[in-house]
Amino acid sequence: MTNTRYDVLGIGNAIVDVIARAEDDFLTKQGMAKGGMSLIDEARATSIYKDMGSAIESSGGSAANTIVGAASFGAHTAFVGKVKNDPLGTVFAHDIRAAGVAFDTPPAKDGPATACCYVLVTPDGERTMNTYLGAAQNLTPADIDPAAIGSAAITYLEGYLWDPKDAKDAFVKAAKAAHDAKRQVALTLSDAFCVDRYRDEFLNLIRNGTVDLLFANESELKSLYQSSDFDTAAAALRKDAKLAAVTRSEKGCVVLSKDRATEVPAFPIEKLVDTTGAGDLFAAGFLYAFARGADHATCGRFGGLAAAEVIQHMGARPETSLRDLAAANGLKA
Amino acid sequence: MTNTRYDVLGIGNAIVDVIARAEDDFLTKQGMAKGGMSLIDEARATSIYKDMGSAIESSGGSAANTIVGAASFGAHTAFVGKVKNDPLGTVFAHDIRAAGVAFDTPPAKDGPATACCYVLVTPDGERTMNTYLGAAQNLTPADIDPAAIGSAAITYLEGYLWDPKDAKDAFVKAAKAAHDAKRQVALTLSDAFCVDRYRDEFLNLIRNGTVDLLFANESELKSLYQSSDFDTAAAALRKDAKLAAVTRSEKGCVVLSKDRATEVPAFPIEKLVDTTGAGDLFAAGFLYAFARGADHATCGRFGGLAAAEVIQHMGARPETSLRDLAAANGLKA
Repeated sequence: MTNTRYDVLGIGNAIVDVIARAEDDFLTKQGMAKGGMSLIDEARATSIYKDMGSAIESSGGSAANTIVGAASFGAHTAFVGKVKNDPLGTVFAHDIRAAGVAFDTPPAKDGPATACCYVLVTPDGERTMNTYLGAAQNLTPADIDPAAIGSAAITYLEGYLWDPKDAKDAFVKAAKAAHDAKRQVALTLSDAFCVDRYRDEFLNLIRNGTVDLLFANESELKSLYQSSDFDTAAAALRKDAKLAAVTRSEKGCVVLSKDRATEVPAFPIEKLVDTTGAGDLFAAGFLYAFARGADHATCGRFGGLAAAEVIQHMGARPETSLRDLAAANGLKA
Repeated sequence: MTNTRYDVLGIGNAIVDVIARAEDDFLTKQGMAKGGMSLIDEARATSIYKDMGSAIESSGGSAANTIVGAASFGAHTAFVGKVKNDPLGTVFAHDIRAAGVAFDTPPAKDGPATACCYVLVTPDGERTMNTYLGAAQNLTPADIDPAAIGSAAITYLEGYLWDPKDAKDAFVKAAKAAHDAKRQVALTLSDAFCVDRYRDEFLNLIRNGTVDLLFANESELKSLYQSSDFDTAAAALRKDAKLAAVTRSEKGCVVLSKDRATEVPAFPIEKLVDTTGAGDLFAAGFLYAFARGADHATCGRFGGLAAAEVIQHMGARPETSLRDLAAANGLKA
């Protein structure tokens, strides 16, 4: 095993979010599946942008949000993902580096623009996402440096990587490099529709030991096992997975391992503003504590704290130092 | 007088804000004057962006924020300002139109990029701004349509327009067109340093009747009359101005006319997050109520309500319907 340079290295679609408030009617008219993530082409992106309200732009991308969150707790982190050499690509690269994350993936010089996600936040705080993958599709196995992966205690992958063909190959190469270096691989299932697209492949990754730590929310878990009953799906997951953290919104999370199930309540919030990034930031806190060898309950508490911060403002990245927030709440890992 | 098509038409620098949190140390190292607005060139813009933290991008511009706020209350509005035909220009145009504001100024096809303001928000919620004027400098008198100005009950101008030479000429042309059509002209002094640059010219505009309604905050007022005493400066303003609304942060505002001074307390807030846009949104609420013929106290209350909304989140534009917010708080104009 090489020396540990990074606590967590994340690989994901590098995306800039365009976030606006919208009424439920807007989703209905646009035929959007509320709470989900849909892949869209450039023409649809243009059409949605034209119709949606005033927006803010904020760097996003599921795994990228997680890595930024882990860095905010004080973790040593790196991110691998593909932008284009265009204004939004410059924004993405600036923001992730400004968060203290190593980001060395060379930007694409031609081809489609930097990926964009049109996020509609309804009055209930729920977010509905429409992603134009653009340059993110051009992440290839050549962008995966086995030495960097080998120097990370945990390599964190997003299920969304299964969408672009080359990115999937990059995912597989990265997971192999991590295990070759005796490191751990974590996966988030990303989205219930994403699970629906790749159920058998994800189950295979979990069952064949590619995944050491799985993140899922309740609807992703139910989609994975095609069950409407949480307990049934959770029992199935305990048989298949080494370790899993399942988030349940305001019910908190449950950490599942072969020998035990640890329930952790949600961190209290004052006002739900925008759920964008809730799962990403849960993973950030969990991974930070996990990399430090914390017990399951502590990992869950760090996850809950980070998720609570991010859902109380617009956008998927923390607006405050999570390290300071943890200290202020007496959390130690 | 032509028919009234707009309650308020605003003219200002069309700017996209790049907003990040920063410690006071950062301002000191960068030699920035806390709480003010500095004009910067492209090289300085690049250097500041490189050093500043993760940011969000949000359409801004002082008068533009005001007009968007007035539209959010339900006013009929238009905006005149110059962007370039580039990605940030597209963002600016999208956001202002999505807010329901008529925006017909043709974008520049060449020349400098769309204007950008690097906003640093310190832990006390204060914002410090660095503006690269870019394409906004190319607003010229040719962009002023006297018919549009003549159809607006109030033409609202920002003092910042005095910075770019051609924009100043556009300002003068617009003010004349408004008065030719027997309409009213409102001006915000924008910034204490801006007042310092153009004190005599602003005083002349107020004294010669070009300005029917003046907006200023306490430090701008003191700068205007080079006095450290608020009451002295306010007394001088009452002699010079027809009508003025002076904001005093948490002390609320005072509306000054020849015959009376009306004090209005600030609207209570839960938590100060970011003061960016406080003055702009005060003007939005005041102008909305003023265009409806409300009394001075009511105008001040609408201003205070809008300012309170915008300082409780990041960014200078309202995140909620101000019309609904006014209704929820029993405010009627």
